[in-house]
Amino acid sequence: MPELAYLNGKILPIEEAMVPIEDRGYQFGDAVYEYIASYNGRLFCTEKHLDRLERSMQGLSFPPVAKDDMRDALNTLFEQAQIERAGIYIQISRGVAPRNHSFPAESQVQIVMTIRSLPEAHPHAEEGAATITMKDLRWSRCDIKTVQLLPNVLAKQKALDAGVYDTIFITETGVVREATSSNVFIVQNKTAVTHPLTPNILGGITRMVILDICKAKEIPLEERFFSVEELYQADEVFLCGTVTEVLPIVAIDGKKIGDGKVGPLTRTLYGALRQEALST
Amino acid sequence: MPELAYLNGKILPIEEAMVPIEDRGYQFGDAVYEYIASYNGRLFCTEKHLDRLERSMQGLSFPPVAKDDMRDALNTLFEQAQIERAGIYIQISRGVAPRNHSFPAESQVQIVMTIRSLPEAHPHAEEGAATITMKDLRWSRCDIKTVQLLPNVLAKQKALDAGVYDTIFITETGVVREATSSNVFIVQNKTAVTHPLTPNILGGITRMVILDICKAKEIPLEERFFSVEELYQADEVFLCGTVTEVLPIVAIDGKKIGDGKVGPLTRTLYGALRQEALST
Repeated sequence: MPELAYLNGKILPIEEAMVPIEDRGYQFGDAVYEYIASYNGRLFCTEKHLDRLERSMQGLSFPPVAKDDMRDALNTLFEQAQIERAGIYIQISRGVAPRNHSFPAESQVQIVMTIRSLPEAHPHAEEGAATITMKDLRWSRCDIKTVQLLPNVLAKQKALDAGVYDTIFITETGVVREATSSNVFIVQNKTAVTHPLTPNILGGITRMVILDICKAKEIPLEERFFSVEELYQADEVFLCGTVTEVLPIVAIDGKKIGDGKVGPLTRTLYGALRQEALST
Repeated sequence: MPELAYLNGKILPIEEAMVPIEDRGYQFGDAVYEYIASYNGRLFCTEKHLDRLERSMQGLSFPPVAKDDMRDALNTLFEQAQIERAGIYIQISRGVAPRNHSFPAESQVQIVMTIRSLPEAHPHAEEGAATITMKDLRWSRCDIKTVQLLPNVLAKQKALDAGVYDTIFITETGVVREATSSNVFIVQNKTAVTHPLTPNILGGITRMVILDICKAKEIPLEERFFSVEELYQADEVFLCGTVTEVLPIVAIDGKKIGDGKVGPLTRTLYGALRQEALST
């Protein structure tokens, strides 16, 4: 089960994969990414991730990459690594060119991937985790999955320094956006509530799967803005994402959520997500 | 006069300088930078740039780099390249580590530089240039000189697509911030006005030099917020920066600034800046 990198068509050990210093991903953060997980040797939601990757590239006017070629590259790496439970990171940059803010007249996108083992389940899945909140300091196009991630890095580190798992971003007017690499759901009176799709949050693939599960199970659902007060007073709170899966949040800013234990709807949705992932 | 790169102590051709794909600068934009220009074989404002570089690293809790070591590296590259009129780009990332938002427990900063020729003067210095404005979509820590530059890239490209030189960022409430890689000054009744130092703009080195020149020449000066209406109605507008120097802006969003010609205070400040740069 080797951990491997893919670099523009070649597969090699991760530590040997190098990019030119004038890759625009390095000098401008001019790059997009995806992260896909596998369960039992099968990649989960591949097409949804490839569709989003394509939308991200279009959103930044990157030279196009054929989706079939991306899928082939992804599958080649996955097959070669033979890791049953894997996380594949994909990054595509606009290309390499002498440093200049404007798009290069001609550039060849750089495609980089890594594959690594993932734990079978999230370490906090059973007991839940705690978070803090902080002002959302990110740019206004968080709907495009780019590597403009320094604010997320700083927020995640702030959480760890505070002894908790993650940070939830809140606007100046108290609207809850999302966590550093996950969407946020609250449960109010058995209704699941999450931020609508706007330029200020990423449209998570797991978020999409959860919405579909809610519809299939006839769980009441609202996509609407909600406030930090609603977050504190929710019956349940959970994060969702490719790595996060459905992660119960049992305390925020030192305040207990509900009775401080993992709630029933969170458990139901976690179970349903895992079932779908393991049976796909 | 070779164009060269510096990579963690080694000097080599730019196209041979490579960084690992898991450099945090590449995957998170977790890196800071500086750009220093030389005039007649002498670097301009080196200490101010090195001071700001140190502040940027401190602002992101990077492992420290001794300023003397940075100065030595810079001088070594500059001497080896023997380019009289050069631009040196310096980028320092937090280091290389398996992808994870949080800071690595231990990491070695990666120091990368390039040196290239610069034109003797900015191509638009004589006649001035035109800009557009657009909503500031950047994050809220633009005071730290990081590579979170994708919004700047998109804004610069938008200007070029509109047939003008650059874009000036404006807040939702109409406050003028700065351009994609320059600070903005307006002239009102012989008074130079520029945005105060806040987390929303970069404290430009050239901005600092211009302020000192204004003080020395007893040119009235205000550091205060000003609106897009004040921008349109200003007697003169100019951008300033290491590459931009003092760049007259003679039209914004298709509207003529003043009489549409380069104004007298802009000319005075351009001359004074060049004189200082050439005589340092």
